[in-house]
Amino acid sequence: MNMSIKLIELAALVDGTLVGPGDVTISRLMDLESAVEGDITFLIKDDPARLAATRASAVIVPEGVSGAGRPVIQTPNPNLTAALIHQQLLKRPFTATGINPSAHIGRDCQLAAEISISPLVVIGDRVRIGRRTVIHPGVVIGDEARIGDDVVLHANVNIGAGCLLGDRVIIHAGSVIGADGFGYAADADGRHFKRPQVGIVQIDDEVEIGANACLDRATFGRTWIKRGTKIDNLVQIAHNVVIGEDSLIVSQAGLAGSSSLGRGVIIGGQVGVSGHVKLGNRVMAGAKSGIHNDIADNEVVSGYPAIPHRLWLRVCAILPRLPELVREVRALKRLQSEKNEQLGKTGEKHAR
Amino acid sequence: MNMSIKLIELAALVDGTLVGPGDVTISRLMDLESAVEGDITFLIKDDPARLAATRASAVIVPEGVSGAGRPVIQTPNPNLTAALIHQQLLKRPFTATGINPSAHIGRDCQLAAEISISPLVVIGDRVRIGRRTVIHPGVVIGDEARIGDDVVLHANVNIGAGCLLGDRVIIHAGSVIGADGFGYAADADGRHFKRPQVGIVQIDDEVEIGANACLDRATFGRTWIKRGTKIDNLVQIAHNVVIGEDSLIVSQAGLAGSSSLGRGVIIGGQVGVSGHVKLGNRVMAGAKSGIHNDIADNEVVSGYPAIPHRLWLRVCAILPRLPELVREVRALKRLQSEKNEQLGKTGEKHAR
Amino acid sequence: MNMSIKLIELAALVDGTLVGPGDVTISRLMDLESAVEGDITFLIKDDPARLAATRASAVIVPEGVSGAGRPVIQTPNPNLTAALIHQQLLKRPFTATGINPSAHIGRDCQLAAEISISPLVVIGDRVRIGRRTVIHPGVVIGDEARIGDDVVLHANVNIGAGCLLGDRVIIHAGSVIGADGFGYAADADGRHFKRPQVGIVQIDDEVEIGANACLDRATFGRTWIKRGTKIDNLVQIAHNVVIGEDSLIVSQAGLAGSSSLGRGVIIGGQVGVSGHVKLGNRVMAGAKSGIHNDIADNEVVSGYPAIPHRLWLRVCAILPRLPELVREVRALKRLQSEKNEQLGKTGEKHAR
Repeated sequence: MNMSIKLIELAALVDGTLVGPGDVTISRLMDLESAVEGDITFLIKDDPARLAATRASAVIVPEGVSGAGRPVIQTPNPNLTAALIHQQLLKRPFTATGINPSAHIGRDCQLAAEISISPLVVIGDRVRIGRRTVIHPGVVIGDEARIGDDVVLHANVNIGAGCLLGDRVIIHAGSVIGADGFGYAADADGRHFKRPQVGIVQIDDEVEIGANACLDRATFGRTWIKRGTKIDNLVQIAHNVVIGEDSLIVSQAGLAGSSSLGRGVIIGGQVGVSGHVKLGNRVMAGAKSGIHNDIADNEVVSGYPAIPHRLWLRVCAILPRLPELVREVRALKRLQSEKNEQLGKTGEKHAR
Repeated sequence: MNMSIKLIELAALVDGTLVGPGDVTISRLMDLESAVEGDITFLIKDDPARLAATRASAVIVPEGVSGAGRPVIQTPNPNLTAALIHQQLLKRPFTATGINPSAHIGRDCQLAAEISISPLVVIGDRVRIGRRTVIHPGVVIGDEARIGDDVVLHANVNIGAGCLLGDRVIIHAGSVIGADGFGYAADADGRHFKRPQVGIVQIDDEVEIGANACLDRATFGRTWIKRGTKIDNLVQIAHNVVIGEDSLIVSQAGLAGSSSLGRGVIIGGQVGVSGHVKLGNRVMAGAKSGIHNDIADNEVVSGYPAIPHRLWLRVCAILPRLPELVREVRALKRLQSEKNEQLGKTGEKHAR
Repeated sequence: MNMSIKLIELAALVDGTLVGPGDVTISRLMDLESAVEGDITFLIKDDPARLAATRASAVIVPEGVSGAGRPVIQTPNPNLTAALIHQQLLKRPFTATGINPSAHIGRDCQLAAEISISPLVVIGDRVRIGRRTVIHPGVVIGDEARIGDDVVLHANVNIGAGCLLGDRVIIHAGSVIGADGFGYAADADGRHFKRPQVGIVQIDDEVEIGANACLDRATFGRTWIKRGTKIDNLVQIAHNVVIGEDSLIVSQAGLAGSSSLGRGVIIGGQVGVSGHVKLGNRVMAGAKSGIHNDIADNEVVSGYPAIPHRLWLRVCAILPRLPELVREVRALKRLQSEKNEQLGKTGEKHAR
């Protein structure tokens, strides 16, 4: 299924330094332990023992690391190089399967000729879908949605009416793009009246979204995920959230309404960000933190409520010692009152 | 697509005070910044600068606020008035599309004549569905479910066998109503045996449920969501939970088995409520709080574990200063032991 | 719908001690309060008042508890006995409905003859499915997946290509098995490049998975859920996670990449486990805890970050008293400085 590529070509492709013979043919990338002959593998840090034990035909290694007899591609970032080589080995020409007859296509759609629409897909009216896009079974796309080139929508994804997806977007199974934001107005009796949610979700190029995630449409305007951002499974993105380029939002995190994140932000798993909060560029938030206030560029925060990460680590070290701290304070108080008595007596002596 | 309504009619509809000419025709509601001619917009608090800048033809404003030359509808609750006017402008007559031929309908169902069942819907046996209800593509409804009038089930929603939905219920894409509760009995070896979950989920009138939420069926009896309650995306409602009227459950919150909430309760995002816990009427729980104990009516709690909200805020202010507190206690101890020595010496002097 | 079984037969089936006449016919198991004639019910702890009030025809009771005139089955574990009897009463012969003509089946599949594939199911190429397996509507199964005997896949479940499911596996609606793990490599500009996820998910016999859960495929190798483990709704299982036998993972918990859990582990709701962390056998983690470090066999932890449960309870008792603790420390400091002055004066006196 994989392509077969000469090692020398792979090295050239990633601008790596080939050390050793380059004529070995590589057809697969595997982890060090599982790799066999014909595979390339990769090593993040020098580790002669693990390197010696692998059966791979070639290894991607950090700069300056030798292969102990095996050909290597030296590179400043073996992780990245492995990703790029792996992608290359898995690449194959796009084969359009066309539109399955069991799919339901609405009126006045503009679907590229070179397209794969699986069985049991439902597409609304006036939808536009670009070239080489693959729509898996059970996907439902609302009226007037626009979807770019080379997009993959996995099984049972739902794209709401009017939503916009750029090129090379990937959305995993079960995710819902463009459900109504959670917006109500209460009357004097506490009854909630729905505030219509008439905005859209805009997802820019190269965004990837995990499985069963929810990105709500804006109340007005747009909920906006910018280029290159990656969102994990079961993440909640509320109405009017904006996320900058190249950010990572890890599983089960939730961003409340109108929160905005800069570029290169990393949000850990199960993090919560309150409504209308602004996070600057390259902010990092540790797993499970709860963010109620704006965070400046480049800050690293953790905890609930979130504080600077290093401070949080110190707080965390103290929490389990709180019972001891309480005992110490009690002991001090006891001593103090004994002292008071003693001092009192000393005073008496002096007075005598 | 929107209706066009004279401003004077809108004012009458919401019992607002019209100030200025009422003959302008309104066809859309938009936010202040995006509104253009023909739009109505709304202002929550007086803000002359923003009001002056809008291009809207009319503005919903708090009582006593003037429009600076623009016609306004004055109202005690602009948020609510805007919601109601927005709903009105978006209202259009129901057009039944009937039952799409690709839908699968079981035996002995009672489906209202005026109904819209999309392509690729699967409905079990003996299901009853009311008038003007809209079932989007990919929805699966189990045997003997009963669904009221004016219900909207979005794409790929699953309604389990026997579950009951009232009128005007909205369920967003991907939500699962009536999966089995998480109930097992363990034997002496720690193996888990499934306890059959034979209850149902009952969802009363005007409940709205977000996307990819899960409401489990009861072990016996029913899991019950009462009238007017709104549940956000990715919320977990376990077996036998009861939620009172007009409550709000924000995204990613989880209510464990047999927990019960009063009416008008507000549960913040990512909150967890333990099994069998009772929350009174109008309880509010801050985002991410973890509730292990019953909470009385009208209490506001936060934190993990949850405590009164104001106390939690004070605790939160102290947490980052814990390292300082530890230093202070250490300093006190050091001083004390120095004092002890000093006192000892003082004592010696006296003894001499 | 239920079977009717003589009480004496039920007692024999579960090795219980029948006290009272065994010829009453039982057709349903219900909770104490709802049970009527013809039902069996169960009591976990002796409770003469509740027992007296039930209208059930028979009761499963702890050893040594008498039925106050009603026939009882005495058993060391009434919960387990109730589960087994309930399963028995609900048992009915499997009726294969075959493959619905609207289902899409790929090439070269091996589907057991005795099978139920619902309308609108999509199955890829070279898929194998065992006997008496039931596939509900909207399920999508990828190429080369292998699914055992007596499996139930509920509506809109997605099984990714190559994934393996054992026998008697149950997966509730909307769950996604085998989406890509969340793996990227960043370049110097902070752009994220996808690391292909080429492993699978392996789910062993008797595993049950709730609704809208996500179990990601491994980067290489497998994400592996071992026999008898039960996973609740909305749980996130990242790539390469391994969970031992007979574990319970409660709703909305998240296990990060390559974390590994032993057998008999219990993970509470909304718990987070960091990547590469190892939890030993029978570890228990309280709801909402955040686990960053390895945990040894049989440990019970809670809190964020997780610490021994008993210690966490003590810390929790102190947290709300932190404002008081701060006041006490301040008072001590004030006293100390007053004392210093006083001692200073005392010193002066001595000096005089």
